Amino acid sequence: MSAEPEDLQLQYEALLERDGVKVSKSPWGPDDEIGRMNWITPESQREILSRLDGSGVFDLGIEYFFGMPSWAAAHDPKFEIWMTHTPQGSVNDNLSGAGPDVHEKYSYCGDSIHMYIHTGTHLDTLNHLGYFGMFWNGWTAEKDLGSRVWNKGGADKYPPLIARGVLLDIAGLHGVDCLPDGHVITPEDLKAAAREQGTELRPKDVVVLRTGRMQRWPDFDGYIPDNPGLGLGGARYLCEDVGAMCIGTDAVSLDVAPHEDPEAFVPVHCYMFATAGAQIIEVLDLEEIAAEKVHEFALLAFPLKIRGATGSPIRPVAVPLRS
Amino acid sequence: MSAEPEDLQLQYEALLERDGVKVSKSPWGPDDEIGRMNWITPESQREILSRLDGSGVFDLGIEYFFGMPSWAAAHDPKFEIWMTHTPQGSVNDNLSGAGPDVHEKYSYCGDSIHMYIHTGTHLDTLNHLGYFGMFWNGWTAEKDLGSRVWNKGGADKYPPLIARGVLLDIAGLHGVDCLPDGHVITPEDLKAAAREQGTELRPKDVVVLRTGRMQRWPDFDGYIPDNPGLGLGGARYLCEDVGAMCIGTDAVSLDVAPHEDPEAFVPVHCYMFATAGAQIIEVLDLEEIAAEKVHEFALLAFPLKIRGATGSPIRPVAVPLRS
Amino acid sequence: MSAEPEDLQLQYEALLERDGVKVSKSPWGPDDEIGRMNWITPESQREILSRLDGSGVFDLGIEYFFGMPSWAAAHDPKFEIWMTHTPQGSVNDNLSGAGPDVHEKYSYCGDSIHMYIHTGTHLDTLNHLGYFGMFWNGWTAEKDLGSRVWNKGGADKYPPLIARGVLLDIAGLHGVDCLPDGHVITPEDLKAAAREQGTELRPKDVVVLRTGRMQRWPDFDGYIPDNPGLGLGGARYLCEDVGAMCIGTDAVSLDVAPHEDPEAFVPVHCYMFATAGAQIIEVLDLEEIAAEKVHEFALLAFPLKIRGATGSPIRPVAVPLRS
Amino acid sequence: MSAEPEDLQLQYEALLERDGVKVSKSPWGPDDEIGRMNWITPESQREILSRLDGSGVFDLGIEYFFGMPSWAAAHDPKFEIWMTHTPQGSVNDNLSGAGPDVHEKYSYCGDSIHMYIHTGTHLDTLNHLGYFGMFWNGWTAEKDLGSRVWNKGGADKYPPLIARGVLLDIAGLHGVDCLPDGHVITPEDLKAAAREQGTELRPKDVVVLRTGRMQRWPDFDGYIPDNPGLGLGGARYLCEDVGAMCIGTDAVSLDVAPHEDPEAFVPVHCYMFATAGAQIIEVLDLEEIAAEKVHEFALLAFPLKIRGATGSPIRPVAVPLRS
Repeated sequence: MSAEPEDLQLQYEALLERDGVKVSKSPWGPDDEIGRMNWITPESQREILSRLDGSGVFDLGIEYFFGMPSWAAAHDPKFEIWMTHTPQGSVNDNLSGAGPDVHEKYSYCGDSIHMYIHTGTHLDTLNHLGYFGMFWNGWTAEKDLGSRVWNKGGADKYPPLIARGVLLDIAGLHGVDCLPDGHVITPEDLKAAAREQGTELRPKDVVVLRTGRMQRWPDFDGYIPDNPGLGLGGARYLCEDVGAMCIGTDAVSLDVAPHEDPEAFVPVHCYMFATAGAQIIEVLDLEEIAAEKVHEFALLAFPLKIRGATGSPIRPVAVPLRS
Repeated sequence: MSAEPEDLQLQYEALLERDGVKVSKSPWGPDDEIGRMNWITPESQREILSRLDGSGVFDLGIEYFFGMPSWAAAHDPKFEIWMTHTPQGSVNDNLSGAGPDVHEKYSYCGDSIHMYIHTGTHLDTLNHLGYFGMFWNGWTAEKDLGSRVWNKGGADKYPPLIARGVLLDIAGLHGVDCLPDGHVITPEDLKAAAREQGTELRPKDVVVLRTGRMQRWPDFDGYIPDNPGLGLGGARYLCEDVGAMCIGTDAVSLDVAPHEDPEAFVPVHCYMFATAGAQIIEVLDLEEIAAEKVHEFALLAFPLKIRGATGSPIRPVAVPLRS
Repeated sequence: MSAEPEDLQLQYEALLERDGVKVSKSPWGPDDEIGRMNWITPESQREILSRLDGSGVFDLGIEYFFGMPSWAAAHDPKFEIWMTHTPQGSVNDNLSGAGPDVHEKYSYCGDSIHMYIHTGTHLDTLNHLGYFGMFWNGWTAEKDLGSRVWNKGGADKYPPLIARGVLLDIAGLHGVDCLPDGHVITPEDLKAAAREQGTELRPKDVVVLRTGRMQRWPDFDGYIPDNPGLGLGGARYLCEDVGAMCIGTDAVSLDVAPHEDPEAFVPVHCYMFATAGAQIIEVLDLEEIAAEKVHEFALLAFPLKIRGATGSPIRPVAVPLRS
Repeated sequence: MSAEPEDLQLQYEALLERDGVKVSKSPWGPDDEIGRMNWITPESQREILSRLDGSGVFDLGIEYFFGMPSWAAAHDPKFEIWMTHTPQGSVNDNLSGAGPDVHEKYSYCGDSIHMYIHTGTHLDTLNHLGYFGMFWNGWTAEKDLGSRVWNKGGADKYPPLIARGVLLDIAGLHGVDCLPDGHVITPEDLKAAAREQGTELRPKDVVVLRTGRMQRWPDFDGYIPDNPGLGLGGARYLCEDVGAMCIGTDAVSLDVAPHEDPEAFVPVHCYMFATAGAQIIEVLDLEEIAAEKVHEFALLAFPLKIRGATGSPIRPVAVPLRS
């Protein structure tokens, strides 16, 4: 068994196989917590950084704001922000202890946030979903989940993500601004988009898929329900045949909704994390790079090292590459 | 009046002058919300990106975790994280509506965070502090503060921060692991460190100051109270004579504590934001770049675009530059 | 001027009159923070407690739960609850420091809540709404609002609410399970209900109005929007002619929605708090006392003494009175 | 087996016995979720309510405020409150959609709270602690715990608590304002206090124990660590010999700290919930009833019906009883 995508098809040993699904043993060993992100090495970072073409810096992150759409189907909290210090409030409450006279002169403001980790542009880590209570590399709640957070696979384990990114504009392929609700992105879509764009997919790529859904942002009803997304076939094609490191999307979920299998719950997520050891990035703003036809780029994204978290908000940046 | 640091001394017009302090009118015009970060342009980004020496990628961000030290002197909330979905819990509560059988097979985890914005490694924006109720470019609570968040100067306005960074190792200058509690970093410290390191300070730099305080992380009592930090003289030297864009530190606060003036409340913050229009980065991990003597680098930091917020958590990355 | 309702019409001196509205000076003096709740005295409590007829104890509070309907029109947070300690999590994370072996034997669970104060059955205090920036007895944000919470009029100032309660079943009066959306409860409704029920309204009463809206609980769309409620005429009748201490409702808002005056924002609330110094109780479950025709009772409700808060969750209990 | 305390010693059948501890099967049947609170019946309520002596109404609840002491040994969140609407903020942000002109006239304030359930005066429910992963009546996380909250034993199941309360002033017995740190309240203390006071302990009582700790409130260091409290012997005496329904204290924990058995984690809590099916009330303010020598009273406390929660904040009221 090899951890290298060159050794296709990428098939990892199973820790659990049941009912058509598989939890893999990491080829990077029993202590591995980040799966395919092990492909990020000083050498791979250097190779990318040496080819930056600074002619453009594209911001792929969206804004966080009060009332922003987020995945709400399982009753997760909305994005919240509030003031903890205000200029006149600091005079009146003296929370700092400095005294009202001091705060008349020195005006103080501060704020706090409360958010579901999977809100806005974010990375999903491998502890986000699994099968039959088992997650990537054999993690289970019984031995690895604390009261508040996982002890395994958290966002804190991740290096700065510096890798080759490739945009596949599936909406563009179909000649639409936005794929229709529930459109299933298939292996054929992926291959056709790469061919039409003239884009080579390589092992260890971060492949980002444009559904056009960001055209509807920030309208909740237009953006959130029944998003177009990847089907299982497409996910397996990218992870096993291409050897992608990570897959991104501009929709709220990489999984198409509703799912192809009505008995499944975000099956592409589960496959990606537990079987393939591959991460997901969601809610990307791909409009500008699609308009500019920037199909190959350095993807720079630095997850907050939130200990044990099932992901992290990120603000990814794309920088074109010299060939 | 010019907005260019070349036109030193950098003195901006006053909107308010009183009791020895000044709120400046932005030289970038009445709509400006980001002050010196206007110096980040496609050209400045390109110049930096073209000089990356990928021989190293240094992570300057620290971990976020339950129980981590944070500034608590004004009763701000601690970092909190908790699960919103657990594998067996999802079977038992069916919050997703998919049904218990589905969740027996598809195991779901998710989590939420709650944090004061100024926790962990973070950027401070110009709406964080001001004088006499007035902030940079004339913002006031009366006209610009909502119930929950500012309408001006928020982290959402910031471009990806890609700029020349310079490390001044003040602890190293003094031959100590960590500067003593309450050490005031003076203009002389700054000049001596630059001279000893052989480092040129240039206009528009992000200057990061190593106090060595991260040696004590994450011990609350060792790290938080009475931190060594910059005095007002040093801040004025860097902002007005050098023309720095932004100043960073490895301590919890750029301001030395206690302050030189016992009647003041974080006066360096107030000066930086309201007078100089310059941002601050705090709680940086500078240990590795100091050990490796990486004194000049590309500073890459991508603030989350949190609308109206007084700052943003960031995970900055330093990449050495070819000369 | 007298603070006694016997001296009808109850008209308090104005601190501000403008554009048809009035902020009153409290007849209980400049330090008063609780308005008509000053009518609760040891004597008034004793009088009520001596007449309890223990033949029934009626629970008027509703459940707090994940997903419960709450007022969302101004983007307030939903009710949230989450675990901070779980049995196996405590073994795995050892947050208590007791050690995993100890937590194998001693299984620990705990949880936290996050909620908008005006969620579920709750009391509204006088600092909740005002006119032109001024609140009951002259409170203003400028001098009385801290960064986090009011310094005046908070729920912490309130005595245990022990008073005569009177149910007016307006839905019953109209022979319906639930008043239609947007039904305005008028003085005529109030008088007719009292007459039909044979219920005497007395000064210092807590008058609770049944709209029947709880029949639709907990359906968000059925319960929250366009609730039937009190019009300004009815509020003035109860506060000025009857001399009620407090008015309650089973709907999400005492104010009818939409309001009679489309240019107003919860005008009954504003009138009650700033002009009349009278509190409001909302989201009461009145179904059982209505079915049992318990029209007069001791109302027992003990607000949590949350310092500075604009209200408090309560679980009121009604106990029939001997005549 | 009988559920009546008259049938002393109160010994319930075991569902699990191991290592010296026992989880009981509820004598109220497999669906029971509230243990001894089943003793609250319409008859028991009527009996108490018919004997109220309204000569006094004593407030046993403490204030909730920013910075208040709470149990922090296992890293639970502090009490937090913040504004969600402010008068001028509502003009500037228009979260309600009513428009700035409307909010110039109609001034709006609101606030939200965030708290660990076991903060301030509160009731502990039977799902708070157990043994070896099993709780009262056989509940386990495996089958009964959701992602966010228990499905069994929550505060929502509780009736309004209306019962005979008895104060045992243990500090008074020892002639001190406050028992020394770590004082273990023994069966002898309990018997001696009852005898000295001339107070009869009866089955189904709520017994509240005064340690005097509230003398130090709200000083964190004085109030929280090493609290005097009940030892296991005293808990067994009250639950098994007296047949108490519930035990309260003015300290942060009913368990003495440190515990008699250094290998245990709040063993009195575990015994009370899992073995005896008896609830706990903590952080009571008993100073006034102790000073007034009100040793017997009606205890009125109405827990918020928070679905699944391990307890609820309450504001209990004591009303003296006619004999």
